Amino acid sequence: MKENLPHVVIVGSGFGGLHAARVLAGKGVRVTMIDKRNYHLFQPLLYQVATAGISPHEIAYPVRAIFQQQKNFEFVMARVWGVDFARQVVLTESGEVPYDYLILAAGASVNFFGNPSLEQNALPLKDVSDAVTVRNHVLRMFEQAAHEMDGRKRQALLTFAVVGGGPTGVETAGALSELIRLVLRKDYRKINVENVRVLLLEAAPFILGGFPPALQAAARRSLEEKKVEVRVEAKVSNYDGEKLMLESGEVIPTRTVLWSAGVRAASLMNTLGLEQDRIGRVRVLPTLQLPNIPQVFVVGDAAYLEENGKPLPMVAQVAMQQGRHAAQNILAALAKQPLQPFRYHDLGSMATIGRNAAVAVTFGLQFRGFLAWFVWLVVHLIGLIGFRNRLIVLINWAWDYFFYDRAVRLITRE
Amino acid sequence: MKENLPHVVIVGSGFGGLHAARVLAGKGVRVTMIDKRNYHLFQPLLYQVATAGISPHEIAYPVRAIFQQQKNFEFVMARVWGVDFARQVVLTESGEVPYDYLILAAGASVNFFGNPSLEQNALPLKDVSDAVTVRNHVLRMFEQAAHEMDGRKRQALLTFAVVGGGPTGVETAGALSELIRLVLRKDYRKINVENVRVLLLEAAPFILGGFPPALQAAARRSLEEKKVEVRVEAKVSNYDGEKLMLESGEVIPTRTVLWSAGVRAASLMNTLGLEQDRIGRVRVLPTLQLPNIPQVFVVGDAAYLEENGKPLPMVAQVAMQQGRHAAQNILAALAKQPLQPFRYHDLGSMATIGRNAAVAVTFGLQFRGFLAWFVWLVVHLIGLIGFRNRLIVLINWAWDYFFYDRAVRLITRE
Repeated sequence: MKENLPHVVIVGSGFGGLHAARVLAGKGVRVTMIDKRNYHLFQPLLYQVATAGISPHEIAYPVRAIFQQQKNFEFVMARVWGVDFARQVVLTESGEVPYDYLILAAGASVNFFGNPSLEQNALPLKDVSDAVTVRNHVLRMFEQAAHEMDGRKRQALLTFAVVGGGPTGVETAGALSELIRLVLRKDYRKINVENVRVLLLEAAPFILGGFPPALQAAARRSLEEKKVEVRVEAKVSNYDGEKLMLESGEVIPTRTVLWSAGVRAASLMNTLGLEQDRIGRVRVLPTLQLPNIPQVFVVGDAAYLEENGKPLPMVAQVAMQQGRHAAQNILAALAKQPLQPFRYHDLGSMATIGRNAAVAVTFGLQFRGFLAWFVWLVVHLIGLIGFRNRLIVLINWAWDYFFYDRAVRLITRE
Repeated sequence: MKENLPHVVIVGSGFGGLHAARVLAGKGVRVTMIDKRNYHLFQPLLYQVATAGISPHEIAYPVRAIFQQQKNFEFVMARVWGVDFARQVVLTESGEVPYDYLILAAGASVNFFGNPSLEQNALPLKDVSDAVTVRNHVLRMFEQAAHEMDGRKRQALLTFAVVGGGPTGVETAGALSELIRLVLRKDYRKINVENVRVLLLEAAPFILGGFPPALQAAARRSLEEKKVEVRVEAKVSNYDGEKLMLESGEVIPTRTVLWSAGVRAASLMNTLGLEQDRIGRVRVLPTLQLPNIPQVFVVGDAAYLEENGKPLPMVAQVAMQQGRHAAQNILAALAKQPLQPFRYHDLGSMATIGRNAAVAVTFGLQFRGFLAWFVWLVVHLIGLIGFRNRLIVLINWAWDYFFYDRAVRLITRE
């Protein structure tokens, strides 16, 4: 790697950082990616790790392996503390990394909206260790219920509340209900699966906000067919680990609250002294640059940019497109070309509910049922990195589909 | 399950407990297996989890899934504190479990021979979490070495000592050296792989004690071809996390000591007030019963039994055969038939060193090289539980073999 080439530093190995680095392959720059994890995580399938369907390594791919062939690429595994914009250095736990251009693709973290009882007792679903914790916890509830004599305690062990009716909440609730009703019922013959409750709680009057109303209704029917109790206009106020309180005053005794009701920009963004929105995102120019700091770009969940008067959503598609766009703008700047404003190309949205059931909207067309589910499968298989991972996930999905099984019903030490 | 049938309790879901429970399928008894883990672990491939080749769930299979079809079987996930032989109950963290017959198949734990510096700083390799810890640790050493400027510190990061020249130590050292020289060299282009040292330290004058001398020599040559430094008559005395001291006075600066130099019977055996050998095993009669307590059988690594004046080895084959034998003796006792003494059928031993290299001895015949390696592959694939696991491990092995890759190079939170 030539030392005198311009140095582009990318913070974050998520979708935004990954796609930025790929655009810079073979170009006249040095690239250094920094992340506290040594892998890229395919977040859209994280809920399947949590529900014992696939193993973490099938959706987590080592960054160094992804970029093995990219000669101008280096990786530093380190936590990032902050950025000194004046001196143009990134501050990490293993020293300072100077940059000529910087792409901040730090992503998002879970947002409990300042509710300490939820932060302490509800289970988030944001990274690999969260997903393994959820899997262990759900299976442990069944192990305890299998020899719990007290009926009320057993019912609390067998009540699972998923909070948040966005795609992650919908997919988690559907997969959890299928895990219980199709697989665990065979493992725990003493437990009457009819007594197991899976609730999906959403504060708004509808689930899958942003989807067309017809698909919202279809998703709700699919969930209810899979025995998920869907509750809209249900606002959660407190959870002490045993009782989930709603703002209506209702109390739901449960030992499990899965939290997928909110995200906010990664905490790194709070350290930069920049203008942020209420969930921590940093305002960027249409070129994705920081106002007044033209060497620094912010992309993905950590960036706030409006289009047609509305903020862009915090989804993988935006992060990927912005990552590529920021890298292209850096190449343009190096070539003394004008920088281009970012335009989002919305390829559509989809959410799967379970076997043969999904909803999707793309190019103005709406899909539901088996067809949407099949499209969902193909899109997510292609999104995985590495032929081996695709093959093994496909084998796992086919096996579960035909044999009503789940491979990873393990309770591991955390 | 009929409540009035005799109740056989099995403590432990390892090879001994598993094979005992299978013999009791469909017989006129109730069976309850108790283990603190909810899975059966195929220990012989644990070193491949530690060296990033396979994922934990491929060698860990849920106990409830194994026995889903066995109607007279129940599972209790709980830690066992002890046994009250007078009252015939097993004492667990979730209550007492009464038994008519008891099979103790508690297995073994790591033995640091009372050396606190090793216990604190060396990494054992006995269960799934140990293996994941080793994998994370080895990869973290490379991440740190990639930006360590101090030459001596870098060399300590890149020196890996495996202590113990039995099959586990040999297999771990061989797999670790191949991971580094075939895979990680591509991930860490800045690290000169010629500087990486993998040492195998054995206190005896030879590795693979118990194997014929010709195979010991062949294994040593194979290891040395794979750049493992084999050191015999090397007794470890102290390790502070940075410097490994040998009894000879030699000091090896290293940040990694993997400990596979000794095992002892599980600590449960110390609570029973029974006669034990120096590594905690409980003496049993040839029928595998405890002397004077005919309802209680001990099998596998926790049992001490001599044959032809020599103690039986602590290996999977003995545990499986004893598990089956104890179950058959219980059925004989219930049928008022005489109990049979246990006879070990030694099917042979094998150890793999790496690609195309293994040693095996069976029925008086010795194998080495590609043939032994191929036999090793087939035997271990068959030993795995579940067609899906066999298929996925086979795909992983084939992939690694042809592409010099390892699937699971992840550093995960522990």
